Amino acid sequence: MTKTNPGHFFEDFTLGRVFEHATPRTVTQGDRALYQALYPGRFAIYSAESFARGCGLPGHPIEDIAAFHIVFGKTVPDISLNAVANLGYAEGRFLSPVHPGDTLRSRSEVIGVKQNSNGKTGVVWVRTQGLRGDGAPVLDYVRWVMLRKGNLDAPAPEPVVPELAPAVAPEALVVPEGLDFTGYDFALAGGRWRWADYEVGEMIDHVDGVTIEEAEHMMATRLWQNTAKVHFDAAERPDGRRLIYGGHIISLARALSFNGLENAQIVAAINAGSHANPCFAGDTVYAWSEVLEKAETAAPGVGALRLRLVATKAPGKAGALRGDDGKYLPEILLDLDIWTLIPH
Amino acid sequence: MTKTNPGHFFEDFTLGRVFEHATPRTVTQGDRALYQALYPGRFAIYSAESFARGCGLPGHPIEDIAAFHIVFGKTVPDISLNAVANLGYAEGRFLSPVHPGDTLRSRSEVIGVKQNSNGKTGVVWVRTQGLRGDGAPVLDYVRWVMLRKGNLDAPAPEPVVPELAPAVAPEALVVPEGLDFTGYDFALAGGRWRWADYEVGEMIDHVDGVTIEEAEHMMATRLWQNTAKVHFDAAERPDGRRLIYGGHIISLARALSFNGLENAQIVAAINAGSHANPCFAGDTVYAWSEVLEKAETAAPGVGALRLRLVATKAPGKAGALRGDDGKYLPEILLDLDIWTLIPH
Amino acid sequence: MTKTNPGHFFEDFTLGRVFEHATPRTVTQGDRALYQALYPGRFAIYSAESFARGCGLPGHPIEDIAAFHIVFGKTVPDISLNAVANLGYAEGRFLSPVHPGDTLRSRSEVIGVKQNSNGKTGVVWVRTQGLRGDGAPVLDYVRWVMLRKGNLDAPAPEPVVPELAPAVAPEALVVPEGLDFTGYDFALAGGRWRWADYEVGEMIDHVDGVTIEEAEHMMATRLWQNTAKVHFDAAERPDGRRLIYGGHIISLARALSFNGLENAQIVAAINAGSHANPCFAGDTVYAWSEVLEKAETAAPGVGALRLRLVATKAPGKAGALRGDDGKYLPEILLDLDIWTLIPH
Repeated sequence: MTKTNPGHFFEDFTLGRVFEHATPRTVTQGDRALYQALYPGRFAIYSAESFARGCGLPGHPIEDIAAFHIVFGKTVPDISLNAVANLGYAEGRFLSPVHPGDTLRSRSEVIGVKQNSNGKTGVVWVRTQGLRGDGAPVLDYVRWVMLRKGNLDAPAPEPVVPELAPAVAPEALVVPEGLDFTGYDFALAGGRWRWADYEVGEMIDHVDGVTIEEAEHMMATRLWQNTAKVHFDAAERPDGRRLIYGGHIISLARALSFNGLENAQIVAAINAGSHANPCFAGDTVYAWSEVLEKAETAAPGVGALRLRLVATKAPGKAGALRGDDGKYLPEILLDLDIWTLIPH
Repeated sequence: MTKTNPGHFFEDFTLGRVFEHATPRTVTQGDRALYQALYPGRFAIYSAESFARGCGLPGHPIEDIAAFHIVFGKTVPDISLNAVANLGYAEGRFLSPVHPGDTLRSRSEVIGVKQNSNGKTGVVWVRTQGLRGDGAPVLDYVRWVMLRKGNLDAPAPEPVVPELAPAVAPEALVVPEGLDFTGYDFALAGGRWRWADYEVGEMIDHVDGVTIEEAEHMMATRLWQNTAKVHFDAAERPDGRRLIYGGHIISLARALSFNGLENAQIVAAINAGSHANPCFAGDTVYAWSEVLEKAETAAPGVGALRLRLVATKAPGKAGALRGDDGKYLPEILLDLDIWTLIPH
Repeated sequence: MTKTNPGHFFEDFTLGRVFEHATPRTVTQGDRALYQALYPGRFAIYSAESFARGCGLPGHPIEDIAAFHIVFGKTVPDISLNAVANLGYAEGRFLSPVHPGDTLRSRSEVIGVKQNSNGKTGVVWVRTQGLRGDGAPVLDYVRWVMLRKGNLDAPAPEPVVPELAPAVAPEALVVPEGLDFTGYDFALAGGRWRWADYEVGEMIDHVDGVTIEEAEHMMATRLWQNTAKVHFDAAERPDGRRLIYGGHIISLARALSFNGLENAQIVAAINAGSHANPCFAGDTVYAWSEVLEKAETAAPGVGALRLRLVATKAPGKAGALRGDDGKYLPEILLDLDIWTLIPH
C-alpha cells in the first residue's frame, strides 16, 4: 500500500466531519523578515514594536494575512489535494493577533456538501479555525472547493448548502485587545488619510507594480507549508508553467495597498474572495481598492473600512473589474472583500 | 603577495594535520524560517516547539541537515577550494540537536592521503567535527575529496587509506537527550506510518517534485557560508551554468521524503553519500527512498530506520538507480544512506 | 484628490526643512539571516555572538551596511521618489552598532538646494540621521539627488551648496563602545592579514563573483522597505528591465571583499560613493579594493583602513576604474570610499 498522502475525495467529506490538520508551526521573527522581503508593505503596526505598543498592543504581531496563510496551508493536505477549484471564502474573521513564539495549528469542520450533476465532482464547504497552542482561536473562515470523487459509485450525499453571510457584520468584527488609535502617529505611519477621509464608492489606484519571480512565490508558499504540487513542479501543467498560490497574490495586493491606505493597519475580516484568473511568474501585479462600507467599532479611535481589494495585471485601471458579460476581465487576478481597522 | 585565500593543495594535507576552520556562526530563528522557505519539509519536531517538547526535547531544534550544512560550509575554504571532486561521506553522526542561539564552528583532521598515479592529484580524507561554543560536538563525519597538487614536484606522501564503516552501527547512533516517542501524536505529525509499518526492501516514491531556481540555491548556499565559486559565478563553467551545491539537493530530497516518511523525524546518521550527477536550475527534483535496515534504540518508543534516499530528475521511478553498466543513471542526482529516528 | 504618495519635488525642499520619515522598523534575527542568504560575506563579528563578545561588544550586531539600508529606505518616499539621479554620498558615519530588537527610524534635514540652469530640475542636499527608538543616533550621512520640479513656475531658491568633507577625518570616526581587538582571534576570523600588512596604494582583487538574480535584489530591496518602482516593475523602463537598487551592489561588494579583507570587520564611515553604471539581473559582480589611507584609533588594538571599494562586471582588473576621458569604465558599477576598522 502506498505510504504517500492520497488526500481526500468528495465522498470522504461527510457533514460534521472534523479534521485536526497536521503539522503545528511555531511562528518566529524569521517569518516576519521573510514576509517583509517578499511583499512591499510598510504598515507600521507590523513593522515596529514601538508603533504597535503606541497603539495599545503588547508587541508587534505578524501580518494578519501571514497568519491566514499558515492556517490555510495546513488544510491543503486534507481538504484540497484533489481540488478542481478553490471556489470562495466567507465569514473570515481575525480573532487575536499572532506573535513570534505562538504555535499555530488548524482544524476544519465540514459544514456543507453538494454533489454536482455530472456525478464526478462535488462542492464541499468547510469552516476552518486557526488555533494557538493554548487552544485559543486566532482566526476562522469558511471556504468551499470543488473536489473530484475518488469512487464514482459512492452515493451522492443529501445536499446541504450552508447559509453564509455576504459580509461579516461590523458588530461581529473582533478588534485586537487593547487596540487604541487615539494617540496614533500619522506621520510615523506614513500617511495622512484617516477613516473620515474615505468615502463609500471611492476608488484608490495603488499605482505601484511588482513583477513576480518563480523563486519568490515558491519561497512564500513553502513558508506557509502549502505544498500543493502545481505551485512547485513545472511538469505538473501541460504548459510547463507553475501556478502561483492565490495567497501570494492576496499578500501582494494587500502590501501594494499601503500606497493610499497607509493607515488601514489591520485586516479584521475576509468577507469574500475570488481568484479570478491564474497568475504566473513574469506577470506584473498592480492593485486598486474600492471603499465598500464604513463602520464604527467600540475601540477608542478605531474605525472600520470595508474594501474591495483587487489585484490586476493592468495598471491604471482602478474600477475595471468585469466585462459586459459580467465575467471578470482577463487581467483581474483577485477580487477580495475585507474589513480593515483604521484610525479616526 | 596576494591577500586572497588560495586554499590548500594536496601536498598541504599531511596526516594528522588539524584545521580549526574560520567563521563561527550563531544560529537564529531566521535560519529556521529560511530553511522552511527553501525546502518543502514539514517534519513536526522542527516545525513546532510544542511538538518537540511533547517528544521530550527542550525546544524545537533546527533541522539536522541545516546544522550539517553550516558545519560543512566552514570547511570549504580550507579543504575543498581546490577540489576536483567531492568523492564521498562516511560515519556521519548527529550528536546533539542544534537550537537558535547556539554558535557553531568546525574542526577537521586529516585521516588519510593517497596521491593518484597521475602525479597531479590526490585523495584526502578528513574527519570533521561541528562544535558548539562550549566545545560540545554536535555532529561529526568523514568526507573525502580529490584535490589538485599545487606543486607538482612535492613528493608523494606515504598512502594511508582509513578504514571506514560501511554504515554507522545502530548501537553507535546517538539519540537526542530526552527523546521519548511514547506519547507521539501521529495525527499532528501528519502521517500514520510507524516503525513497524516499514519493511526492509520497501520502496517509497515520494511523488512530489520541485523545480529549482537560481535564486533559491544561491540563497541556501550563502546561508551556510559556503562560497565555492562554481555555485555563484555563471562565468566559472564553460557552459555558463551555475552548479548547484550538493547540499541543496540533500535538503530537497529530505524535505520531499516527508510525503511517505512523515514520522522519520530525525536524521541520526549519514552513512554514505554520492552526488551522482550535477544539478542545474530548471531541473525538477523528485525523491524516493528504500528501506535498508531496521533497528531498535534504547530510547522510549524510538526506533531507527536506515534509508537509501535518492534524488532524481525522473518522476515515478522509485528503485531505478543504476544502469546495466553499474553506473548511476543519468537522472540520478543523489544517493544518500541515512539513519532516521521514528516512533514505534 | 489622489490618496497615493506623490513624493516631493525640487521646490518642496526649502533650506532647513526637516522630514521625520515614516515607518519605524524593528530589526530582528530574521534580517540577519536574510542578509546572510543574500550576500556572501563572512565577517566574524556579525556572524558569531561569541566572536563579537570576544571583541568587547555586548552581542553581535547586524551588518553596518544593513543598518544603512534600513535608514536609507525610509527616506525614499520623501526624498527621492521623483529623483532623476542619486548623485552622491558624503560624511557618512556609523555611530552605534544596531542589534536585533532595536527599532530604527530616520530623519532628514535639507542642507543645500541649487536649481539647475534648465529650470526644470535642481539638486538637493540632505543630511539624514538614523535613530534608535530611544532617540540615540545610529548613523548619519549626507546625500544629494537631482529632482524634478513639480511646478516649473516655482521660483528658483537662493542656491546653497554645503561644504562637505572629502572624507571623514580619522579623528571623527566613532569606534563602537567597548571594541577591543587586543585578543582578536585571526584564525577564527578566517584571515591572517592585519592593519600593518596593508599599504597605501595596494590593490586587492577579491577574485570571487556573483551572478545576480531578479528575486534576490527585489527581496533585498523590499527588506529595507525601499519601494522605488524602478526596482520592482518591469514595465517602468522602456527596456523592460528592472534596475537593481544601488545598495544591493554596495552589500555585494562589501561581502565579496571578505576574501582579502577578512579582518576589516567594521565599516565606520562612508566617505563618498558613486553608482557609476546601472546593474541588471544576469550581470556578474566582482570587487576590488584600493587602500587609500591608514589611521590609528584610540580603541585598544583597533586600526582604521580607508578603502576604495569598487564593484565591477569585469573580473581580474583591479585598479581599472576610469577611461582616458576620465569617465568611469562601462563595467564599473560602484566606486565607494569607506573607512573600516581592523585589528593591529
